[in-house]
Amino acid sequence: MLEGLMMDYQLTLDKIIEHARRNFPNKKVITKLPDGSMHELSYREMHSRIKRLSSAMCDKLGVEIGDRVGTFAWNNHQHMELYFAIPGAGAVCHTLNIRLSPEQLTYIVDHAEDQVVFIDGTLLPLYEKLAPNRPSVKYHVIFNVDKDVETSLDNVVFYEDLIAEGDEAFAWRNTDEQMASGLCYTSGTTGNPKGALYSNRSTYMHSLGVLQGNSMALCEKDTVLAVVPQFHAMSWGLPYAAVYCGANLLMPGQFLQAEPLAEMIEQYGVTVAAGVPTIWNGLYHELKNNPRDISTIRALVVGGSAMPRALTVAYEKELGVDVLHAWGMTEMSPLGTVCVLQSHHIDLSDEEKWDVKATQGYGISGVEMRIMDEEGNELPWDGQTMGELQVRGPWVVRQYFRLEKSESHFTADGWFRTGDVSTISEDGYMRITDRTKDLIKSGGEWISSVDIENTLVGHPKVMEAAVFAVPDPRWSERPWAGITFVPGETADKDELNGYLATQGFVKFWWPDNYIAIDELPKTSTGKLDKKVLRAQYGQ
Amino acid sequence: MLEGLMMDYQLTLDKIIEHARRNFPNKKVITKLPDGSMHELSYREMHSRIKRLSSAMCDKLGVEIGDRVGTFAWNNHQHMELYFAIPGAGAVCHTLNIRLSPEQLTYIVDHAEDQVVFIDGTLLPLYEKLAPNRPSVKYHVIFNVDKDVETSLDNVVFYEDLIAEGDEAFAWRNTDEQMASGLCYTSGTTGNPKGALYSNRSTYMHSLGVLQGNSMALCEKDTVLAVVPQFHAMSWGLPYAAVYCGANLLMPGQFLQAEPLAEMIEQYGVTVAAGVPTIWNGLYHELKNNPRDISTIRALVVGGSAMPRALTVAYEKELGVDVLHAWGMTEMSPLGTVCVLQSHHIDLSDEEKWDVKATQGYGISGVEMRIMDEEGNELPWDGQTMGELQVRGPWVVRQYFRLEKSESHFTADGWFRTGDVSTISEDGYMRITDRTKDLIKSGGEWISSVDIENTLVGHPKVMEAAVFAVPDPRWSERPWAGITFVPGETADKDELNGYLATQGFVKFWWPDNYIAIDELPKTSTGKLDKKVLRAQYGQ
Repeated sequence: MLEGLMMDYQLTLDKIIEHARRNFPNKKVITKLPDGSMHELSYREMHSRIKRLSSAMCDKLGVEIGDRVGTFAWNNHQHMELYFAIPGAGAVCHTLNIRLSPEQLTYIVDHAEDQVVFIDGTLLPLYEKLAPNRPSVKYHVIFNVDKDVETSLDNVVFYEDLIAEGDEAFAWRNTDEQMASGLCYTSGTTGNPKGALYSNRSTYMHSLGVLQGNSMALCEKDTVLAVVPQFHAMSWGLPYAAVYCGANLLMPGQFLQAEPLAEMIEQYGVTVAAGVPTIWNGLYHELKNNPRDISTIRALVVGGSAMPRALTVAYEKELGVDVLHAWGMTEMSPLGTVCVLQSHHIDLSDEEKWDVKATQGYGISGVEMRIMDEEGNELPWDGQTMGELQVRGPWVVRQYFRLEKSESHFTADGWFRTGDVSTISEDGYMRITDRTKDLIKSGGEWISSVDIENTLVGHPKVMEAAVFAVPDPRWSERPWAGITFVPGETADKDELNGYLATQGFVKFWWPDNYIAIDELPKTSTGKLDKKVLRAQYGQ
Repeated sequence: MLEGLMMDYQLTLDKIIEHARRNFPNKKVITKLPDGSMHELSYREMHSRIKRLSSAMCDKLGVEIGDRVGTFAWNNHQHMELYFAIPGAGAVCHTLNIRLSPEQLTYIVDHAEDQVVFIDGTLLPLYEKLAPNRPSVKYHVIFNVDKDVETSLDNVVFYEDLIAEGDEAFAWRNTDEQMASGLCYTSGTTGNPKGALYSNRSTYMHSLGVLQGNSMALCEKDTVLAVVPQFHAMSWGLPYAAVYCGANLLMPGQFLQAEPLAEMIEQYGVTVAAGVPTIWNGLYHELKNNPRDISTIRALVVGGSAMPRALTVAYEKELGVDVLHAWGMTEMSPLGTVCVLQSHHIDLSDEEKWDVKATQGYGISGVEMRIMDEEGNELPWDGQTMGELQVRGPWVVRQYFRLEKSESHFTADGWFRTGDVSTISEDGYMRITDRTKDLIKSGGEWISSVDIENTLVGHPKVMEAAVFAVPDPRWSERPWAGITFVPGETADKDELNGYLATQGFVKFWWPDNYIAIDELPKTSTGKLDKKVLRAQYGQ
């Protein structure tokens, strides 16, 4: 083999903050602090603080290369500093999901053997309750807190003291792109959480993926509001991507309610905002009651679960905001697809465009997808055929942290099995039709629970819907639906199935039963937890 | 060290064409054929042809992994196919610069030991004259040519015959990202040409660099006109970047004259066009005579040498076209900087914006720059201090092909010495003030020949200017200027130095002598060749 004669340049995360310091010294991370005031930190200052933090982490706390260092925090400038300082110290930034159960969180801190945990003062009582004083943890470093705070944690260090002791001349220790840089556990609905261990290289490449023109196309002119938490799939990679391109980054702290979000968007002229559908649903209703101009937003990025089509239409028609569906997984760093329209869609009607926008979009440069049948044959990209979605790419996991590689997650030829069932159109637009485990197999045919749910929530009386499989002696499985109705409203089976009929669903897909439920069961990340429904109604 | 557990995914060029086949099957390479007609090739078809070409190259021509395979061609779909098929076969795409001298071309083919050379039929007579039947070359493959063509070359194969014999089921052989994929010789004005040997990885990373929002921001909605030749610094990476993002790519073949370019831009609604200032100067004058609407262009990318400020102003004010200065080098794959304005420039006046746009811009994500004094100390980024520009990054060479690593090109700590002298502003905007070798040192002070030239061409009677050093007993060196006047015009030293005075130049910088010259000496790539002037007038 003849090697190219190009520089052996390591794709490491220090390059990102150094680039920002050099080219965007006056761009900022803007944080809504616990007291509600706004805090601005330039990338030049942030670089200096990060360097000192990395240095002190090594010298004062004894963090070694490869150590896991936990974070338990909202989105704020300290959490941003940790995103760079921990990898810069050669360690692994392990973001702890504050919404996990005490058992899960304890399991995760112990499994990762976190050496140090950085804790947001506003979450200190929660952390004390969930995972206090785990055996591996040598130090608890706290911020956003008064010096006289009372805590049951031992070995407490104050964050600002640590930075004050650091040395700005510190030399970055993430010198090899293969070094682990981040750790994020998936909150599976079954079994213990599984850790995705990112490398410097994978996260660097992922950042370039986020910056692509066909993807979120972030650039220096953007002001990005990261509503998606830093403890959830690395805030979809926005912290690294925004700094790399020199965008201003707006961090809402714990203020994830519609009103403060609306206020921040208007005040700072946000151009890109990213969050789950629930957040945007809340914001929409807030804006109906208290109108504000949010038309500076050029991309309302939605992920986590599918955006109801009606809500997309409302944002685009009523608020003049372009909605960008995105799809990914913790195991994918997380970004896989973004639903940007292609040039051949230009002449479509609005309705047809929204049909395209209801899909998850096509793979960003770097992400490969395929759909497979149960025998492992690749299925055609025709927009109709459903198959198990598999992916590969520079920012996809090859194995879980401290788990044996298993065939249920990885194929023999090196693809990751997403656990999703989807179709893909001729031009690459992927549409998730179900989770593998939620798919309903009835009379030998597949029924997409997601398709039925997405349609049912379009009914004016339905707020949320969960369609799940119930064993059936004749058909093997039949769909049932759990429904949360709009307050004060209700509807019976005939009305709802009649609605499905008007939306083009054949009778065979209509749920056999509808159950009114006050609150649908959800996982810690807010996804429908259908195994609870199956357990309850499956007998 | 703890390694991340991410896929060992190789950054190779096959990924780019596979991504386009999957997601942009109906987007196109559009070529102006030698007969002037337009030829359209979809990425789906191109993928199939490339696979067959790679296969036949291996099976029929015996191309081995690491072999160098030459191309001698204009920008067209065949050259595009070769850009992917040669690396796909595990070989090195060696683009031969058709504008080199016979001696240089012969040297290069022999030095690279090209095993096969692909020749554009329209250039066959030129190739026969310059570098016929070199000892290493086993086959000459020709296209754009009739079967009954007469040629002095031996072992001639017809391109379409080769593709017809190929197997579409061919498995890509560029399986390791470190494998060399491209070779491009610089046409230095002194000594033999030197080869930059790109790897799959470096070119892949460079493509992502071109696609960044802060860079050219190419996306699927673009139609890109690549005027910059594929035989010149890989057409600035556009062939790979455009395919990766699914843009349509317009290839002008040998039709680089202003009239056909203007026609193509208007007909296809070009959004991004890339070329050297001479091309855009010609286009501007063509459009003054024969107006056409070219306002679909969102970025007129200019590189190779500095765009005269007056021309930038003319494009923006008169034609509604945004000019994007870019800078790079063959040794940098080639893109280093792009002059996109930053958000803090928004409130500047037009004149102030054009001042910023006259610089080379700031580094794209991945490119690091620094300026150094003669003792190897780093100089400040203040927009004033001039120093030697050094760069590093994932797509910068670490050594030349088959040459010992030398200190005149590479620093001990791993940076590439560009040979340019520049300033860098606080926010990263780099401005080239000279080539190291063209800088004039007079009375212990540096005088920028480029600054004087750029100003002199703003004088209405001056067409081109070359300022060069002449030995001086008192000052060590003094500037002289060679001038090509606008036809029918002339101006004397007093008038020209008076003009420099009005533009803010101190007397010490004024050239001691002006020489009217019919045509200024240029290198094969159209750059001023001042060593000819120094030799002629330096005594």
